[in-house]
This record gives sequence, C-alpha cells and structure tokens, in this order.
Amino acid sequence: MLSFDDAGKLIERKLEEIQFPESPRELYDPIRYILNIGGKRIRPALVLLGANLFSDTIEEALYPAIAMEVFHNFTLLHDDLMDNSMIRRGKETVHLRWDPNIAILSGDAMSILANSFVSRVRPDILPLVLKTFNDTAVEVCEGQMMDMNFENRRDVSVDEYIRMIELKTSVLIAASLKIGGIIGGATDRQAHELYDFGRYLGIAFQLQDDYLDTYGDSQTFGKKIGNDILTNKKTFLMISALENSDPESLQRLKAWLMREEYDPDEKITEVKAIYDECGVKDRTNEKIREYFEASIKELNRILIPEERKTVLRNFSEQLMKREV
Amino acid sequence: MLSFDDAGKLIERKLEEIQFPESPRELYDPIRYILNIGGKRIRPALVLLGANLFSDTIEEALYPAIAMEVFHNFTLLHDDLMDNSMIRRGKETVHLRWDPNIAILSGDAMSILANSFVSRVRPDILPLVLKTFNDTAVEVCEGQMMDMNFENRRDVSVDEYIRMIELKTSVLIAASLKIGGIIGGATDRQAHELYDFGRYLGIAFQLQDDYLDTYGDSQTFGKKIGNDILTNKKTFLMISALENSDPESLQRLKAWLMREEYDPDEKITEVKAIYDECGVKDRTNEKIREYFEASIKELNRILIPEERKTVLRNFSEQLMKREV
Repeated sequence: MLSFDDAGKLIERKLEEIQFPESPRELYDPIRYILNIGGKRIRPALVLLGANLFSDTIEEALYPAIAMEVFHNFTLLHDDLMDNSMIRRGKETVHLRWDPNIAILSGDAMSILANSFVSRVRPDILPLVLKTFNDTAVEVCEGQMMDMNFENRRDVSVDEYIRMIELKTSVLIAASLKIGGIIGGATDRQAHELYDFGRYLGIAFQLQDDYLDTYGDSQTFGKKIGNDILTNKKTFLMISALENSDPESLQRLKAWLMREEYDPDEKITEVKAIYDECGVKDRTNEKIREYFEASIKELNRILIPEERKTVLRNFSEQLMKREV
Repeated sequence: MLSFDDAGKLIERKLEEIQFPESPRELYDPIRYILNIGGKRIRPALVLLGANLFSDTIEEALYPAIAMEVFHNFTLLHDDLMDNSMIRRGKETVHLRWDPNIAILSGDAMSILANSFVSRVRPDILPLVLKTFNDTAVEVCEGQMMDMNFENRRDVSVDEYIRMIELKTSVLIAASLKIGGIIGGATDRQAHELYDFGRYLGIAFQLQDDYLDTYGDSQTFGKKIGNDILTNKKTFLMISALENSDPESLQRLKAWLMREEYDPDEKITEVKAIYDECGVKDRTNEKIREYFEASIKELNRILIPEERKTVLRNFSEQLMKREV
C-alpha cells in the first residue's frame, strides 16, 4: 500500500515529467511557477490513495491526480487576484509578479488543462469521472462566490457558512477521492461513500483551519495567528460568537468590528476574550469532531478489507493533528 | 437539410430551455445576461450544420452546440475585462454592470459549464469530442495571450499575426464544425477536412473583419469605421503597411502612431492614404481570397453527396459578404 508520502513523491515526479509548452511564455510561465512553489499536494495524493483502496496499480490515476492539483492551483491563482493577496506559499502571487490579465488568462488555461488531464482515463469510466470533475468544479466557483458575498453580509448563519466551505473547499477533496476510487474500480456505492468521507473530512479540515487561525501556534500553523480577527473575516468562530453572545458581549464584538483604528494585538486579545465568553472554542472543537467522526463513519462503511483503509485512516488523523 | 437560420432558431430554443441555477445569483445572472444579449450564434449553428452534413438527425449535437456558444461568450466576458471594454453587443459589459471579480468568476463557471455541455454525447465519441474541445480551448487562450503581447511589440510579422487570429478566432469555428461532424458520423478524415475548412474560413473571416474596420460601411458593418486606426491596433492592414511601405510612407505612418493629440477624422484619412500608397487594400483582399479559396477546397474534398454541402457553401459565401 502507498503511504501519503509515497503518493506525494509520485505526484512530484509526474509534475516534473509534464512539459507545458514554452510559448507563449506569459501564459505558461505562471502555470509552471504556481505549480512549483510548493503546496502539500493533498488533493492529488488523495486521488492516488483513493485508487489504491481498490487496486494495487495506480498508474492510471496519475494524470487525474495532477488534474486535481492543477485545478486547485487555478482556483488559488484566481482567488488571489480577486482578494488582491500579495503572498502565496511565501512567494509573490501571480498577478503581482506578472499582471492581473496574465493571472486571468493563465488561470483560464489551467482550468482547461485540468480537464484535459482528468480525461486521460479509460473510456468506460470517462463519463463518470468527467461528470464528477465538472460538477465539482462548478460547485467550487459557487463556493467562492458565496464567500465573496458573505463579506458584504451581516447575517450569515452557521449553516450557510458550512455550506460555503463545503462548496469552496471540501467537494474538491471529496471528488479527488471519488475519482481515484472510480479509477481503482470502486462500485457506485463505494465511490459515493468515499466521496462523503472526503466531504465531511474537508469540512472538518476547514473548520480546523478557522480554529487554528485564532487558537493555533504560529510555528506549527505556518501563518500569523489572529489574521481572521484583524480582517473581520466571517469564519465559523466569528459567526458562532455573533449567534451565541449575550447582548453585552455582542455590543463589544460589534464595536471591534466597526473600529477602524486599533492596536492589532489588543484587537486579537479582546476579540478572543469575547469568543471565550461565548464558548466559541468548545463550540468549534465540537463541530470539528462532529464532522471528523462523520467522515470516519463513511470510511468504515466502505466494504473492503480493513487493512486497505489504514493509510486513509492515518492520513485523516494526521490531518486533524496538522501533521500533514 | 437545416438552413443557417433554422439552426439559429434551434439554438435559441435550446438556450431558453436550459435552466441555470438561481443561486448564487451573482454567479449565474451574468451568465444568463451575456447569453441573452444577442450574438449571431455562428459557432453553435456550425455544430448543427456540421452534424447535418453526415446525419439527418441533429438532436445529439444540440448540447455540444450550446457548449461552443457558452465557451465563446466566456472568452468575450474575460476579454472584455482584460481590455476594459465598456460595451458588448450594445450593452454594458459584465465587469461594469457587476464588478471585475464577478466577471472573473462567472467566466470561470462558463468555461466549466461549456465542458459539461460538450460532454453530453454518446460514450463512444466522447474521448475525441472532448479532446477536440479542450485542445481548442487552450489554443484560444494562447491566441488571446499572443494578441495582448502584440500590443507591446513593434515587430509583429504578418505570419505571426495570422497565427494569432488562427488561435484566437478560427480554431473555435473549426472545432465547432468538427465536433458537429463527429457527432453526425464523419470519418476521422472527413472530420479533419471539415476542421480545416473552418480553420481557413475563420482566418478569412477575421481578416475581413480587419478590412471592414477600415474600408467597410458603418451601416452594414455595425461598428464605427476606423476604430482600429485610432487605437493603433496591429491588424493585418497595419502590419502589412509597416512591412511594405517605402521609407517616406513608413516615416509618416510611425509619426501617426506616436502622435498623442490629433483630430480623429484626420488620422483615419491620413493613415488610409498611407495604406493606399502601400497597396494595403489589394494585399488584404488577396489574403482574404486566398484563405477563402483554401477553405472551399477543403469543403470540396469531403466525400459526401454535393447537395449536402450546399448549406455550408452558401453560409461561407454569405459570411464573406457579411450577410450573416
């Protein structure tokens, strides 16, 4: 059985093997760039591990695996442009290093190239693989649009928020596993269970991302702590504070959201204090556990020898501990 | 046999039938908008006419036809954003009516939806239809990037220019015909000949567009005459003037290209006069005829009863006369 690290190495090797055209340079250089500045390769690894659940050979899953990585990086490239982010994985974002038009067009090409790569499977499974990919790809756009809409709304509910992260983040993880599974020979039912395993795991993963942005350790999390609080981001934590605070805490929280000048450390400390009053930490941990357990339940359902599931089981535990 | 107008009506009916999701509105409203503000529906009509060359039933070609229209409109939407164009088909462009981020994201979704629609064919032809679509879609991005690059270059050759319009405009016309042909039951050879018919016709069509922007009649052309001259656009006309002028004419042309303040009508008149000195008008007409004749030659090659080709033959003649 392939470990997560083995899968990652196969992905890196395949990425090196794929030669994008040299010309026009302005179209393909940003694609090479964003694919080469790192990333944990979680989605492509999950395609290989999904295939490996059902089959000992995973060769056919390699191009579809690359497809999921290319598509994921396309969404990052366009999201960074839309959010005007400066830094991605410690490097300048594409629209800054080149320009916004190049970012638009390189992203467009990546989305199409991802589709080309995912289509390199045997003809009998092509219709299902392609439908899974395209349905998911549109959902990711819907999720990103919901996320942008939430910025201008004050009444986002926890349920809406979870639906948003499901679309923006988790369906691509789910589809990666499912596409791997289909290639490996999963039945429709197994493919569906694998999808739901990924869907719940993806939600748990994103909720944990929200959690760590406030309660994490900047060393292990790899990002500055408190950024979501400083930017008034409507994360699960903020929304559940707004939903569950008593009138006095709510008043103070809203005052912090309105304030335009403040000491950053003070804002982080004060908002965290309000979160504590509202039980946000426990509430979030509970929600993460809920989705994590739902994901494990789906993995348990899949009717294959238990030992084949060990890698994915370990992977999800490590993911929850942020050891991946 | 289906006429071009019949094909257009079938396309409009199918477009009305397709229901895009209601939510998120900001994602799907711009898609409905751009698909509903008109357009000649040339590409989808060519899918149907391509199928009809080989088959009397064209039902299966309807979704792929819509795919080509959706993809074409996706490229317009992103191109308008990149060029910061204000007006498309007499209406406000999407990035102005909504905002640039919505234009990016709705375009992204359209590109994926186009792929979903083109994939709705019988499984035995899916791999070839899909490969044709994806290869073409990437080429269109390459063509758009070349076009943007040309703006900052002074040494674009006629050959490079023709390669650019081939990628940006004509391969999508060619692919529309080919995909229709495959659905209708064309052999590989016939599909290839049909593709080349469209490829040459598309180049002739774009060259004629350049021609009419300078020498056309604003009534029948439907756009203001001389716009390419005013914006220093590197069209076939400008490039062949730069390549074929004597030193004195070249000097005057370059002076007009550099001048920042001028009377628009004077600039148009003067640049046209330089074009006349360099034989640009004849040269362009000759090139258009060359590609038009190459396209007809490809159509003649296709081994099917001659009467089946009448509609496409008439269509290309009308296209050249701008009666479509």
